[in-house]
Amino acid sequence: MLFNPRAIQHCRACGTAVEYRVPADDNRERAVCPACATVHYQNPINVVGTLPVWEDRVLLCKRAIEPRYGLWTLPAGFLELGETTEQGALRETDEEAGARIDLQGLYTVINVTRVGQVHLFYRARLLDPNFLPGAESLEARLFSEGEIPWDLLAFRTVRETLRCFFDDRRRERFELHCLDVG
Amino acid sequence: MLFNPRAIQHCRACGTAVEYRVPADDNRERAVCPACATVHYQNPINVVGTLPVWEDRVLLCKRAIEPRYGLWTLPAGFLELGETTEQGALRETDEEAGARIDLQGLYTVINVTRVGQVHLFYRARLLDPNFLPGAESLEARLFSEGEIPWDLLAFRTVRETLRCFFDDRRRERFELHCLDVG
Repeated sequence: MLFNPRAIQHCRACGTAVEYRVPADDNRERAVCPACATVHYQNPINVVGTLPVWEDRVLLCKRAIEPRYGLWTLPAGFLELGETTEQGALRETDEEAGARIDLQGLYTVINVTRVGQVHLFYRARLLDPNFLPGAESLEARLFSEGEIPWDLLAFRTVRETLRCFFDDRRRERFELHCLDVG
Repeated sequence: MLFNPRAIQHCRACGTAVEYRVPADDNRERAVCPACATVHYQNPINVVGTLPVWEDRVLLCKRAIEPRYGLWTLPAGFLELGETTEQGALRETDEEAGARIDLQGLYTVINVTRVGQVHLFYRARLLDPNFLPGAESLEARLFSEGEIPWDLLAFRTVRETLRCFFDDRRRERFELHCLDVG
């Protein structure tokens, strides 16, 4: 889903139809209210998730929702107001997989400019191998590297994060990866 | 400036006054349009910036705009749609300081939950020590560690990033720092 640069049609403060123009002290087109002068900014949003590991296997969830119904993903979702990126990653792991984890540090930061998102994945250690997938997942299970369904992954950022993980594991050295997937 | 969890009063799609309630498939209160059913999500936004270094000194800018007019900051600002975090950090460094830099990697990721922001700072190497501050800065200049105006810094995330930098420099080892400043 591409972001729509003109998704705002009415002022959030007073409901008047907005105009798209470059405000006086700005250099980008914004939705500006001709009645109350509110300027509406649109910015990329963050998706936070985890790469949970149990022995030599990683946890994936089969999506029960669109987009990408039925495809496999790492637990992840939109960061909410009032929570830190770590708290959001833990919450999504609980909501989507019912998995109990310890976070092990930020692992990938991936710009997805086409949809106006930044994806942040944390490495995590599973505290036990029992899951209770929530309403957003059809199934949650562990995969060894050879079992990963590479052609059935839901998102490019999940594929890149898994690829980094298995490469780093072979090198026996995990480090932050910053990527852009366009 | 605290974020306002009820800043949305009218539907962006049709202008009708919204209601705040928990949508059927959700667990958080959202602004929902009673006329067209649009759900309005609000999420934390990203501030991207750099810590530009020339020999043993770092670049700071004196703010010419509110908030924190007249206080010192690292070049930073809101990530825009269509750009990567790296592109945003470079753009802000150019806009606020007119500084030419090479980025050296993501250095701090700081949650500022109180205002609904995530701040990402990159270490950077200044290509020359000549600056051309833009309209948002009164002045741009280099500071050695002993010259840093610690009591006149504009933001806690700037203070934390500078503190990490000078500590790491003493240890001769730079690594990613993930922090929360509440």
